[in-house]
Amino acid sequence: MSKGIISKEEDYSQWYNDLVIKADLAEYSPVRGCMIIKPYGYSIWEKMQSVLDGMFKETGHSNAYFPLFIPKSFFSKEASHVEGFAKECAVVTHYRLKNDGNGNIIVDEDAKLEEELIIRPTSETIIWNTYKGWIQSYRDLPLLINQWANVVRWEMRTRLFLRTSEFLWQEGHTAHATADEAIAETEQMLGVYADFAENWLALPVVRGRKTPNERFAGALDTYCIEALMQDGKALQAGTSHFLGQNFAKAFDVKFTNKENKLDYVWATSWGVSTRLIGALIMSHSDDAGLVLPPKLAPIQVVVVPIYKHEEELENIATYVKGLTKELKAKGITVKFDNRDTHRPGAKFAEYELKGVPLRVAIGSRDMQNGTVELARRDTKTKETVNQGGLAAVIEQLLEDIQVNIYAKALSFRQENTKEVDSYEDFRRMLDEEPGFLSAHWDGTAETEQLIKDETKATIRCIPLDNKLEEGKCIRTGKPSTQRVLFARAY
Amino acid sequence: MSKGIISKEEDYSQWYNDLVIKADLAEYSPVRGCMIIKPYGYSIWEKMQSVLDGMFKETGHSNAYFPLFIPKSFFSKEASHVEGFAKECAVVTHYRLKNDGNGNIIVDEDAKLEEELIIRPTSETIIWNTYKGWIQSYRDLPLLINQWANVVRWEMRTRLFLRTSEFLWQEGHTAHATADEAIAETEQMLGVYADFAENWLALPVVRGRKTPNERFAGALDTYCIEALMQDGKALQAGTSHFLGQNFAKAFDVKFTNKENKLDYVWATSWGVSTRLIGALIMSHSDDAGLVLPPKLAPIQVVVVPIYKHEEELENIATYVKGLTKELKAKGITVKFDNRDTHRPGAKFAEYELKGVPLRVAIGSRDMQNGTVELARRDTKTKETVNQGGLAAVIEQLLEDIQVNIYAKALSFRQENTKEVDSYEDFRRMLDEEPGFLSAHWDGTAETEQLIKDETKATIRCIPLDNKLEEGKCIRTGKPSTQRVLFARAY
Repeated sequence: MSKGIISKEEDYSQWYNDLVIKADLAEYSPVRGCMIIKPYGYSIWEKMQSVLDGMFKETGHSNAYFPLFIPKSFFSKEASHVEGFAKECAVVTHYRLKNDGNGNIIVDEDAKLEEELIIRPTSETIIWNTYKGWIQSYRDLPLLINQWANVVRWEMRTRLFLRTSEFLWQEGHTAHATADEAIAETEQMLGVYADFAENWLALPVVRGRKTPNERFAGALDTYCIEALMQDGKALQAGTSHFLGQNFAKAFDVKFTNKENKLDYVWATSWGVSTRLIGALIMSHSDDAGLVLPPKLAPIQVVVVPIYKHEEELENIATYVKGLTKELKAKGITVKFDNRDTHRPGAKFAEYELKGVPLRVAIGSRDMQNGTVELARRDTKTKETVNQGGLAAVIEQLLEDIQVNIYAKALSFRQENTKEVDSYEDFRRMLDEEPGFLSAHWDGTAETEQLIKDETKATIRCIPLDNKLEEGKCIRTGKPSTQRVLFARAY
Repeated sequence: MSKGIISKEEDYSQWYNDLVIKADLAEYSPVRGCMIIKPYGYSIWEKMQSVLDGMFKETGHSNAYFPLFIPKSFFSKEASHVEGFAKECAVVTHYRLKNDGNGNIIVDEDAKLEEELIIRPTSETIIWNTYKGWIQSYRDLPLLINQWANVVRWEMRTRLFLRTSEFLWQEGHTAHATADEAIAETEQMLGVYADFAENWLALPVVRGRKTPNERFAGALDTYCIEALMQDGKALQAGTSHFLGQNFAKAFDVKFTNKENKLDYVWATSWGVSTRLIGALIMSHSDDAGLVLPPKLAPIQVVVVPIYKHEEELENIATYVKGLTKELKAKGITVKFDNRDTHRPGAKFAEYELKGVPLRVAIGSRDMQNGTVELARRDTKTKETVNQGGLAAVIEQLLEDIQVNIYAKALSFRQENTKEVDSYEDFRRMLDEEPGFLSAHWDGTAETEQLIKDETKATIRCIPLDNKLEEGKCIRTGKPSTQRVLFARAY
């Protein structure tokens, strides 16, 4: 245990919590289940937002903002939707406090709302109620809107980033003239999420569909990207839903189609959340701290001067100023840590903990030799390199680190994705060598639930690239036509 | 009345509402007092956010995120703070809904919170409770944090953007070792807001301080920027508060200073909101629609082709492609509207309504002559210019428009800021020639309240650049040492 972080080996769950706290990413608030995202954690979220927002706009979406509050009656209009969310809603019942005369601040019972308001757990209902006013004809379609917002789902068991009562997310809500167009949008956005996960988070994901049991409340079909964490548990990293005409029917949203006939509008919704920060941590980090992919690291390169006398620092600082300028011109984020309150060793430990991909250390001997010491966070390797051409070397190394982190996570997932054909093996492997287990299933909700109750494993998805293959359900022995991906999950 | 918008002359308030709706900026939601910010309105907010966020970061601030919910007991800890906000709070009392057995969804009384949660109307209390854990020594200071968030203040009379129960804003919360440093921060952020208002919104503002009556609940001093709308009413466009040690004392946030003694931390907070969009509309727009400053316009240049035959369009489109590329390289946002479902006249009206600063129209004759028609939104002037060097002409024109809009608003404010020395004139002018009235006041809260009750005018601010001047209070005749700025306000 170093830096106050337990080892992954000893207690993965505690390691995760320690790391989130020690790396200054987030902490629990005094409000049950709600977190405070600290500046370093938030800066990772800002980078994610910025990239995703660009991707959404490139695919034709615009941002908008809908109310935090949803009237209870709206919320109840789509039956399976309210069924899915009613048990975890924050409910606003009053709109005023008052002093009770004895100096206590109490709820003013004279200010009771006629209809209770639900804090949005997701915004389909309020948005589809609004779309009714925006859509009359096929010319108004497609309507491609995204919202960045906070949502609340009252969770009983919470974990920083992974499951909190309030979290930040984006939710896309689109409206289309045909089922095919809506399905194409659902698939397109799954592709955007997969691209973002793989090329930015360096997180390999399986693209798949959920079983009916695991679908979003109100969806006809839920697509997802599933990732494997270092402890062999799965994490759902993003979902994209084909909602059919369910919400259009619940909110009476019809349009005149090209044949001049009235029809209900077809819908999709899709979202990712601050949970992605949890996925990022659990995919790449180690006992020394965070390992961040360069493309999402708030600081990509840190420069630490090593000196005894003030004049040495001046000399180093002059060189670093030039280097920084060169790196910035390449779009690389650099921090020069010239604090005189901390020793180089303490700084090294701090940036290791915070997952800065590259560290440059420069001492007086380096200045004489025209060299620097470069240390990679991902491989923990160090080398002495020439100052000449350093910016280009750093640029290349950052690309290499991004590729290496992804490759490492991919090979981990490949090693921990296994076909299994007996229930005995299945149960043993879940305990002894957890990962994605590819197994036959008879296709019924009952068997799925039975396996979940007996093993805590769920069907993460039916991979999109699945091959048809005859087999027997591992639990019931009934015939099956394809394997599905099981795992215990976050 | 054109485009469904009443004229400003006839009914300014209705004109504002019509414009917000017709220009697709926002609309009311079914939730009392909450608005839906539509994509076009939200894209203006996004531009504002992006510029302000850059300014905050340049002045050393980082973003973070704190919970939406504030426990009632926290909220009550700073006496004047709770006094100021208790009357307009949304209160969460339950965390679950249930089916009552007859198909009705009702609040589950078994899921009542032990302590009610307030939806943040502002976050001083939850943040200072957190800062207690973050600050031990002067080395932890200053702590410079900003949050982009939604807040809720239960308003009885609401207006789109100007006053809504939920609104979007940013709130800066900083902690300092000395009063002087905190005051310097308060003033610095006022300067940032004034810079943003004047150089981006093209909105001239008076920098000043609020009287004790008008201070933020819990502040020792409130600085503000005040702007004058076209109807002669004032609008508070941003505030920056020096909070002294009030919140540090309420939440017991002490630090060890350089002399190794314990002291309470000094605080500031500062914020601007989506209300700025209202200010933007009411400063520059006219009966034909929005007039947007080029620096904040989501679309800066629109290109409309004028043609009868498809081949003509192809020819024009080829030219526009090259022009667009040139403009984009200059960082200018261009839209080529080649829809065949709308006539040029309808397009002209639409972009006029939406306040696009420059319109380029190109017909076949233009293509033969090597010209285009350029129309400015602000002056409603048109001219024919050569295609050669057009990108540079457009770039210059956008700068001219930004300057012109500001100059117009400034001269309006100057013409409508008047010194007044008798209460009779004061009352008459408020009705007949409203604007900023610079008048003497005896400095008491009682007189201020009396004037407000009698005239609905409030002291907007004591301008920072005020000169001392002996005079007599317009209401009481008592001696006064300086003039203050009165107006009726939004």
